[in-house]
Amino acid sequence: MQVAVLAHDSFPDRAKTAVGLLRYGDHEVRAVLDRERAGGRVADHLPDVQDAPIVGSMDEVPEIDALVIGVAPIGGSFEESWRPDVRAALERGCNVLSGLHYFLTDDEEFAELAAEYGGKLVDVRKPPENLTVADASAGEVEATVVTTVGTDCSTGKMTTAYELRDAARERGLDAVVVPTGQTGVVIEGWGIVVDRVVSDYAAGAVERLVETPVGMDLVVVEGQGALGHPAYSGVTTSILHGSAPDALVMCHEVGRERVHGYESFELPSPAEYADLYERVAAPVSDASVVAGALNTRGLGDDAAADAVAAYGEAIDAPATDPVRGEIPEELLEAIV
Amino acid sequence: MQVAVLAHDSFPDRAKTAVGLLRYGDHEVRAVLDRERAGGRVADHLPDVQDAPIVGSMDEVPEIDALVIGVAPIGGSFEESWRPDVRAALERGCNVLSGLHYFLTDDEEFAELAAEYGGKLVDVRKPPENLTVADASAGEVEATVVTTVGTDCSTGKMTTAYELRDAARERGLDAVVVPTGQTGVVIEGWGIVVDRVVSDYAAGAVERLVETPVGMDLVVVEGQGALGHPAYSGVTTSILHGSAPDALVMCHEVGRERVHGYESFELPSPAEYADLYERVAAPVSDASVVAGALNTRGLGDDAAADAVAAYGEAIDAPATDPVRGEIPEELLEAIV
Repeated sequence: MQVAVLAHDSFPDRAKTAVGLLRYGDHEVRAVLDRERAGGRVADHLPDVQDAPIVGSMDEVPEIDALVIGVAPIGGSFEESWRPDVRAALERGCNVLSGLHYFLTDDEEFAELAAEYGGKLVDVRKPPENLTVADASAGEVEATVVTTVGTDCSTGKMTTAYELRDAARERGLDAVVVPTGQTGVVIEGWGIVVDRVVSDYAAGAVERLVETPVGMDLVVVEGQGALGHPAYSGVTTSILHGSAPDALVMCHEVGRERVHGYESFELPSPAEYADLYERVAAPVSDASVVAGALNTRGLGDDAAADAVAAYGEAIDAPATDPVRGEIPEELLEAIV
Repeated sequence: MQVAVLAHDSFPDRAKTAVGLLRYGDHEVRAVLDRERAGGRVADHLPDVQDAPIVGSMDEVPEIDALVIGVAPIGGSFEESWRPDVRAALERGCNVLSGLHYFLTDDEEFAELAAEYGGKLVDVRKPPENLTVADASAGEVEATVVTTVGTDCSTGKMTTAYELRDAARERGLDAVVVPTGQTGVVIEGWGIVVDRVVSDYAAGAVERLVETPVGMDLVVVEGQGALGHPAYSGVTTSILHGSAPDALVMCHEVGRERVHGYESFELPSPAEYADLYERVAAPVSDASVVAGALNTRGLGDDAAADAVAAYGEAIDAPATDPVRGEIPEELLEAIV
């Protein structure tokens, strides 16, 4: 699929979805829309992802199948200054994909244009309507299922999932990421945003996702939240049990000692946290934390290497910073 | 309010809502609908709750204000064989209350009949629309907050909550149950069916519920599911963290060794389960399992007493069967 990604005034640092698409997506990104940086190229900002021109509006975008909203502003609202670009995409008959809280399908103008020109509006946060309670069948999936879990939100669970997939592919394995959040679902073009699913069906939704890919050696499930998180632990637990993983990879950010945004709550130590995940997983699937991913953002190379080593020792498993370095052979072997 | 309760083919053992209403509700139950047991009386099956005739259909029900759907099948679908009774109730101008996943308000025939005859369709599982992410404030509630947790579904979490409330009231305390499931919400007339809430907001919904009652000495939060349940653990965890309890009471059914309806999954032992609850609660609130409630249904008195003693010993806390006997003084003291 050929796409353009809308990231006005936000590329690259505040456009997580756009960057994710460029880095991990299988789609060809033909243009990034950012009126502030128009005229440049993606490679000027991000040397290690697929390159594309940065343009000011849909007028400068070549032929595409879909426009993807690549920003996720706080609150998830639709920024009215994006309207002309979405309108232009729809008038060209393109699909428009969005992970916003604001549903494009509920926007009268967009709905009419989509109907008139034959494009499709896809609100990835809208869960499917035919979800059910889990029947606990995900454990029967033949592929090795590994779920990324974390000590907090924003510790690198999605990134780690994709880096594991890429490392497995490099070694000749058929590997896929099962996306459970809006960025992943936009990147993949399939998946379910689990935090939007009714609680009773959350594990069932994950189970369905895990059972979707066929012929895989490795299925990497993107985890969400954290098991001890005051607000999001329900989502975490639903993914942990719904995916019935064979193994867990635990993501942590170096130096993080308190729950982000809930600073009065201390994080358990990584060792305690790994044990907690294993013990809660155990009644459903016998999954150990077989590897660790440490986000060492902000550290120098030596300090990062030391931190990774200490983290691996703490959780008694091979560890890496998947953004900073390769996935080590022994880490991948611990998983598959 | 005068009600009839629909419990076809299910009364009493598979009609939890019906039994809860008969035992703890303030409504006068004028009939139970169960075509399989029609002709008998409630008292034939349950000697210690309000009595009512069991009838085969709405034709035999005297004047009522509302028909309550008193069964909650797995999946929460509407059983088409109930349709004539719901239709008849609506044609008499009665309200119909339902805790099913299937919303009666979305059923065209029922919606039309309700509009035509002036009855109201009340889907108690429909959550409020203005829910938010938890801000982790429930720990600041002044009352003692105790949450009932369980080793499985249907181990007595709601029953235990009500029996604790009644025991506390008998000792002069102001006590209230915070209902989180369809039966409790039907009984109380307030509450939120947490399993129906979007996962992201589930803990936030519980937090709001816990902060609702004022001037209480004891707030007993009705738990749901089980921490190691393959399908419902997300709901359990959201309640565990969202309620930020001061103490936990763990409910178990004697002899249950496998997850009900998911028989390939073994339950952890009660001692392990209590430890698991405490360890998962710990990052948010320092709550111990201070008491146990054992469902000894099916045992003789001596065997039940032995089982309760063994259960208390296993979890190292005072235990009782709250349905069979009084709540012992020492158990209540362990909580408040």
